[in-house]
Amino acid sequence: MERYDKGLEKLKEVDGKAGEQVVASLKEIAPDLGKYVIEYPFGDIYARPGLSLKQRELITIAALGAMGNAQPQLKVHIRGALNVGLTREEIVETFIQLSVYAGFPAALNAVFAAEAVFNEQETPG
Amino acid sequence: MERYDKGLEKLKEVDGKAGEQVVASLKEIAPDLGKYVIEYPFGDIYARPGLSLKQRELITIAALGAMGNAQPQLKVHIRGALNVGLTREEIVETFIQLSVYAGFPAALNAVFAAEAVFNEQETPG
Amino acid sequence: MERYDKGLEKLKEVDGKAGEQVVASLKEIAPDLGKYVIEYPFGDIYARPGLSLKQRELITIAALGAMGNAQPQLKVHIRGALNVGLTREEIVETFIQLSVYAGFPAALNAVFAAEAVFNEQETPG
Amino acid sequence: MERYDKGLEKLKEVDGKAGEQVVASLKEIAPDLGKYVIEYPFGDIYARPGLSLKQRELITIAALGAMGNAQPQLKVHIRGALNVGLTREEIVETFIQLSVYAGFPAALNAVFAAEAVFNEQETPG
Amino acid sequence: MERYDKGLEKLKEVDGKAGEQVVASLKEIAPDLGKYVIEYPFGDIYARPGLSLKQRELITIAALGAMGNAQPQLKVHIRGALNVGLTREEIVETFIQLSVYAGFPAALNAVFAAEAVFNEQETPG
Amino acid sequence: MERYDKGLEKLKEVDGKAGEQVVASLKEIAPDLGKYVIEYPFGDIYARPGLSLKQRELITIAALGAMGNAQPQLKVHIRGALNVGLTREEIVETFIQLSVYAGFPAALNAVFAAEAVFNEQETPG
Repeated sequence: MERYDKGLEKLKEVDGKAGEQVVASLKEIAPDLGKYVIEYPFGDIYARPGLSLKQRELITIAALGAMGNAQPQLKVHIRGALNVGLTREEIVETFIQLSVYAGFPAALNAVFAAEAVFNEQETPG
Repeated sequence: MERYDKGLEKLKEVDGKAGEQVVASLKEIAPDLGKYVIEYPFGDIYARPGLSLKQRELITIAALGAMGNAQPQLKVHIRGALNVGLTREEIVETFIQLSVYAGFPAALNAVFAAEAVFNEQETPG
Repeated sequence: MERYDKGLEKLKEVDGKAGEQVVASLKEIAPDLGKYVIEYPFGDIYARPGLSLKQRELITIAALGAMGNAQPQLKVHIRGALNVGLTREEIVETFIQLSVYAGFPAALNAVFAAEAVFNEQETPG
Repeated sequence: MERYDKGLEKLKEVDGKAGEQVVASLKEIAPDLGKYVIEYPFGDIYARPGLSLKQRELITIAALGAMGNAQPQLKVHIRGALNVGLTREEIVETFIQLSVYAGFPAALNAVFAAEAVFNEQETPG
Repeated sequence: MERYDKGLEKLKEVDGKAGEQVVASLKEIAPDLGKYVIEYPFGDIYARPGLSLKQRELITIAALGAMGNAQPQLKVHIRGALNVGLTREEIVETFIQLSVYAGFPAALNAVFAAEAVFNEQETPG
Repeated sequence: MERYDKGLEKLKEVDGKAGEQVVASLKEIAPDLGKYVIEYPFGDIYARPGLSLKQRELITIAALGAMGNAQPQLKVHIRGALNVGLTREEIVETFIQLSVYAGFPAALNAVFAAEAVFNEQETPG
């Protein structure tokens, strides 16, 4: 359970609510995947030294934005990027840069995902 | 010519030799693409404030590593990442993190690209 | 018409209703594509010996889950996989394994597609 | 502003309304990306000689249909393809051909995008 | 055999030698795939009316260039594009346009593939 | 070390030599990734019940063949597929089926990878 606990803690640093939601969403259908999602990405990888959490979230939103086929996870990590201290400007700037490497459609769809996340954070819950 | 000159200067900050090589390699076949490669990515995008050059290279190697179908450009930007001050450790760490989002094969192939670049830099020219 | 008839029969083994729905959905916009979808994938390929239908559906959900950009077709083939005798556990297990090769987001999105299909089958029509 | 004006004019030839909508949609979140979307793709590339606008839209819908992860932009360019004189038949035929190179799911999803665009154009506004 | 013969004839219009080479290259390992490659893409699709051969090759090189993971087939179809009457300028222009939708690396790698094909055609055999 | 040992054992069942080679190849550049490659894919995932090793290798070669951007890993797992009891015919048949979902180029390139692996196994070492 050590990796799991370390992973859960790290995931909470990145995105408090999302951590619980992902595990909860997998509880019925694939509880072991819920366990692995905590253990490997967060218990093993995010917990490593060598990069700051800000750098790690920058890498993740760049990768997901470029791949362009994982919008739900992109949104989770745009929230995470804000939580660990990246600014809205840095996030949007990242996606503008993706236009060079993955094309304008990937850049536009990532920017619109960012806008959706920013808007939802301004709406009182 | 202003964007071009600004782009060439910015590209030189990222990778002195590669800048000239890319333009030269396109001279015969597609000189206008050589112009655009300098103008848009480097004159427009890399020249923007909002992200440091280290952040920009981190984004680029994360995007190219995740996409997994542009090894020549990935290698150019691993060199660029080193030139703007990212350490070997940060570069390898970035690719280890890609295993989470793009899978282990993408991570492995990016790490091997990094190794090839690091080795070639140790070989006296 | 031989390949078409053979394909229709094979598609019915995989997914009775989906077969008719795909052909019907293309009737207005691209009837010839409706014909090809029956003839080549089902009349030529699925009708081949060499792999069981269970193996063929395993291959298809693995490929579509990994590519991550064809959710409607992934759902059709999750239904097909159930129809030819793969268990829910085998389907979910397949998608858990995709986390290794295509990354966690691909695995998660495929698992959620499976959950949607499983749920819809439990809802009395 | 020269490239921007040239791009806006060219974009209007391709899709009058979409041009304004894209710029408007980016106004809050990433106005500079709105500028680049006009300048580089339309001011620099679409404005080039060497290919007709019909050829350019054929290339774009083929590329976006094959990539399969940019449905909003695919729809914009299906409208653009119609505007510059490609027929519905040519557009559908293009997507049928994609079944060979990008697989049947990519072909089907592009055809359904075309159907949605065609239907929306028949609905009196 | 009708589709096969029609396909072989059509493939010869696109690329005389490549047709025989692909079939020959699959003879040992997967002769049936060699048959399907002729029948479906060329006997069914390329033989259709609705698009000219020049349009079909434009679509194919745009799709393969954008996908970026099928360089051998991209080269075959650059040769085919030349054979059916597209000019070198149109082919290069197509790939320059891909920079917008699939990113600069996809455009560059497609342009370099074109250069390799053009050079090999200038070399006396 | 338990997951690592379990993973190493499982990897040896899949591909004796490749296991050691991957770990060795990462020793200098990214030894921790060498550890993760054993622990997560093989110690956690391949070691799970729910699918046979033959099914797992079928899933992996289908996923990698469809993605089309990880030829070295595809070859490793074609060898693995043979080791766990899939026949050459089943492997080739799998790739023929990919023509439907990922397109003919993906199918062809996977078949040629299979041929290279089969040939190398016939060459006395």
